[in-house]
Amino acid sequence: MGVGIGMPGFIDFQKGINYTFLEIKDQTIIEYLTEEIKLPVYIDNDSSLIALAELRFGSVHHKKNVMVINIGWGVGLGLILNGELFRGHNGFAGEFSHIPIFDNNKLCECGKTGCLETETSLLVLIEKAAAGLKEGRLSSLPSNFPSDYYEQDYEAIIAAALKGDQFVVELFSESGYNIGRGIAILIHLLNPELIVLSGRGAAAGKIWEAPIQNAINKHCIPRLSSNTKIKVSTLGHDAELIGASVLVMENIEKNNTVIKNKTV
Amino acid sequence: MGVGIGMPGFIDFQKGINYTFLEIKDQTIIEYLTEEIKLPVYIDNDSSLIALAELRFGSVHHKKNVMVINIGWGVGLGLILNGELFRGHNGFAGEFSHIPIFDNNKLCECGKTGCLETETSLLVLIEKAAAGLKEGRLSSLPSNFPSDYYEQDYEAIIAAALKGDQFVVELFSESGYNIGRGIAILIHLLNPELIVLSGRGAAAGKIWEAPIQNAINKHCIPRLSSNTKIKVSTLGHDAELIGASVLVMENIEKNNTVIKNKTV
Repeated sequence: MGVGIGMPGFIDFQKGINYTFLEIKDQTIIEYLTEEIKLPVYIDNDSSLIALAELRFGSVHHKKNVMVINIGWGVGLGLILNGELFRGHNGFAGEFSHIPIFDNNKLCECGKTGCLETETSLLVLIEKAAAGLKEGRLSSLPSNFPSDYYEQDYEAIIAAALKGDQFVVELFSESGYNIGRGIAILIHLLNPELIVLSGRGAAAGKIWEAPIQNAINKHCIPRLSSNTKIKVSTLGHDAELIGASVLVMENIEKNNTVIKNKTV
Repeated sequence: MGVGIGMPGFIDFQKGINYTFLEIKDQTIIEYLTEEIKLPVYIDNDSSLIALAELRFGSVHHKKNVMVINIGWGVGLGLILNGELFRGHNGFAGEFSHIPIFDNNKLCECGKTGCLETETSLLVLIEKAAAGLKEGRLSSLPSNFPSDYYEQDYEAIIAAALKGDQFVVELFSESGYNIGRGIAILIHLLNPELIVLSGRGAAAGKIWEAPIQNAINKHCIPRLSSNTKIKVSTLGHDAELIGASVLVMENIEKNNTVIKNKTV
């Protein structure tokens, strides 16, 4: 029926443009693919799609104001406000990964320093694990860690975390606490009823909850934070795929309604 | 026709309760006043009302996604999202004043440390001015500064700023830069088309713009921030009053519609 694409980057969903990745001359990625595939094509930010999946089929179902955190190679955010996906003025809302909250002198890939992701993304977790092993920290991580493959390293740290490896659990706690500092800001600004931890990092499960709650306890006014629940998503890896298909279905439906109305 | 109240504090607009100020036994403030005045009474957070005033009669007119900053004794925020005032799950959204972004070991009145307002509110500005004068900084501030009256001190620093007093301009720049650091977070999260500086602090006028823009230039990704304009409100001191009357009119209208529909 159609093609839905989830990608990282600054994406204008209306215009079908990803300003960050894949430059195609004179055509948007949507125009190019529609021409080649002869099917309607839609694109949106990966974190927005994960939020859309949670909204229609996951933890957000029937809820109004929810923040969906996409723990992945960055730390994205999909905002559900008044029961709908909120995209902002240009479709760029939810740049949680780059809110400047650390004074850590670590250069982020965006060019700034101190962004949330410089202490919290799964990439940083893998880097910290590698550095710790080099310094002689004991861990059940495999001997070929870090490999040259992020995907393989990601699976290794998740497996170690689920087994309760102390060193890796420590890293997840630290990262979770720092994500929690960011979430404290979200709670103050947007007073959500629920925070959902989703994206590939959610595979580590409940291990995220305590350190995040810890940070909220320290950095939030209780009157506010007592109204917000924290939950780890159960959609797992599929969230983005489900979101991409929701994107297609909702837009095809909208277009059909427009066509029907025109016919009438 | 009715009474509209703007107050600081955690306010549930639906229930008519201010959880922070004025405890009235067994009755909400709304119930108490309605009984005494025999008119419909509505209450909302001061920053939300200022945003409502800007939305109906000020800089936000016909705009969709705008953050209205209430520079006052704290630094509040009214969020206009999708063309409407956004209040969050319990009506507590917009607690900009207490987002934790400084590592300054300054205790905030909320009980936490490092909140935005600990470096940026007009109260802090007055305190910093007083401390500077004590240390011998030259300034045209009146000899009785600080007086025992915040309102008088507020007028003194605004007058000095408008006259270009170097010491006071320096204080406004510092405060503006720090507000700008908070605004950088808002821009990343919500991708607004406009930031309006309102509330009593807006009386200092354009003096806010450069330091805020400076902070945005340093702390925001240009692709995002280039879509957001900064503007000082012209509603001035009246914003909150206008907002309170908008609150009354919109709710009386809603109630009348409900009554009409019932009659039909």
